[in-house]
Amino acid sequence: MTFEYDRDTGVTKTAENEFTAELSTRWGMAAALNGGYLLGVIGRALGETVPGRPDPISVSAYYLSATGPGPATVKTEVKRSGGSIATLAADLVQDGTTRITALATYGDLSQLPEGHRTTAMPPDLPAHEDCTRVWDRPEHRRDGDSMRDRFEMLFHPEQAGWASGEPSGNGVISAWFRFADGREPDAISLLTVVDLLPPVTVDLGKFGWAPTLELTVHVRATPAPGWLRVRHATRNIAGGMFEEDCEIWDSADRLVAQSRQLARLPR
Amino acid sequence: MTFEYDRDTGVTKTAENEFTAELSTRWGMAAALNGGYLLGVIGRALGETVPGRPDPISVSAYYLSATGPGPATVKTEVKRSGGSIATLAADLVQDGTTRITALATYGDLSQLPEGHRTTAMPPDLPAHEDCTRVWDRPEHRRDGDSMRDRFEMLFHPEQAGWASGEPSGNGVISAWFRFADGREPDAISLLTVVDLLPPVTVDLGKFGWAPTLELTVHVRATPAPGWLRVRHATRNIAGGMFEEDCEIWDSADRLVAQSRQLARLPR
Repeated sequence: MTFEYDRDTGVTKTAENEFTAELSTRWGMAAALNGGYLLGVIGRALGETVPGRPDPISVSAYYLSATGPGPATVKTEVKRSGGSIATLAADLVQDGTTRITALATYGDLSQLPEGHRTTAMPPDLPAHEDCTRVWDRPEHRRDGDSMRDRFEMLFHPEQAGWASGEPSGNGVISAWFRFADGREPDAISLLTVVDLLPPVTVDLGKFGWAPTLELTVHVRATPAPGWLRVRHATRNIAGGMFEEDCEIWDSADRLVAQSRQLARLPR
Repeated sequence: MTFEYDRDTGVTKTAENEFTAELSTRWGMAAALNGGYLLGVIGRALGETVPGRPDPISVSAYYLSATGPGPATVKTEVKRSGGSIATLAADLVQDGTTRITALATYGDLSQLPEGHRTTAMPPDLPAHEDCTRVWDRPEHRRDGDSMRDRFEMLFHPEQAGWASGEPSGNGVISAWFRFADGREPDAISLLTVVDLLPPVTVDLGKFGWAPTLELTVHVRATPAPGWLRVRHATRNIAGGMFEEDCEIWDSADRLVAQSRQLARLPR
């Protein structure tokens, strides 16, 4: 069985450091595809560029213009490969225009030193049945064409007021997350999961698309199987922009990814 | 009068999208130059690449290998220029090798919308005279060749135990900051200031150089004249790496820059 995330982010190598992808309508809202989904596609191409360096450690993407469904090309470039890591560049090109440009460090997460310590705390999410299911269960519409059919998201009930028109104003949302078809999380998929919750600005009462200018993801460990916990927060709005910090925690209570994006406020 | 920061980060345009710099010995520790200083040099070249887009809004740098004093070239590329911002790439090349590769969004901070709101809090620093001056006053050795002669840093006394061999273990350091020769902060110089304090790992008892893999800076507002307050914090160590978050606050109590870097633990 091929899981839909793997099918939809798949890339085909067509030349040295060049890959094609067929971007799916299934990972978008309206005409624009989700930035995290697109980062997953780029991440797949980067992971196939240098042998033995399959995992993203850091990826920084600058979003130049909206990307739609259909064919696209990912061109990669090795900036440096040495020691245990490789630094790479990538452009996602559609209709002759570069839509996203990125830099990344790749390595092999399984080869990194084991020790870890943290003072960060996972989001304090209630049990699944006490969380808020904003959308219908994805199982009921697996063949649906909405991005929301791709996953389950169970929101912290005290941070889900925005769904019923009563945003808290705190700028924090968090949720349990898993893919609807049972695909387990891995390092690449974290590049997508950091951008799948609604923009945290919904909790400030600002609805609508918040175009990302820049998004950097640090993958801090390979996630264990099972549900993820995802937290989005913003603290500062200035110059018509806000930062959105995301943390992802796995079922073994490890902080597996941290990201920050700078985005424009919804109009 | 030319301030030393402006002199030492100066670039000369030699061709379309190509600049030379003479990297100064005065911004390093041992043979390697400070990553923030180098980001300032790159930032100057980027600011001269697209007319009317002088200010960094977001800069992401990947450090490939150590850069030393002497001549270097910064090659820039316009990825997209449209609307009110430009997205750019830059490589800093020394001795024929790319040492740093970067992506950036530039614009004109004075043209951004004025409104702002924040739930972030500035570091709770005592008055200057109650802070800890770890090094001699820079005025006494203005002609010194150490990076520490370039600025004044007055550390929070409860976060300066590392300087006397008693790190707190909390992973937080903060300090008042100003350039020693009276140069006022601006957007470009924030690219440097985010990386001038010692690595936050000193507060965990890990001394020594912490090589940066990736550093992203978001400039959130033009800083007001006067002292800056700078805070470094880390929460998570994993895979031999740690993240260092930096915030810079200006004399008007505005959060003017946020950065995060992923760095290797000191050996």
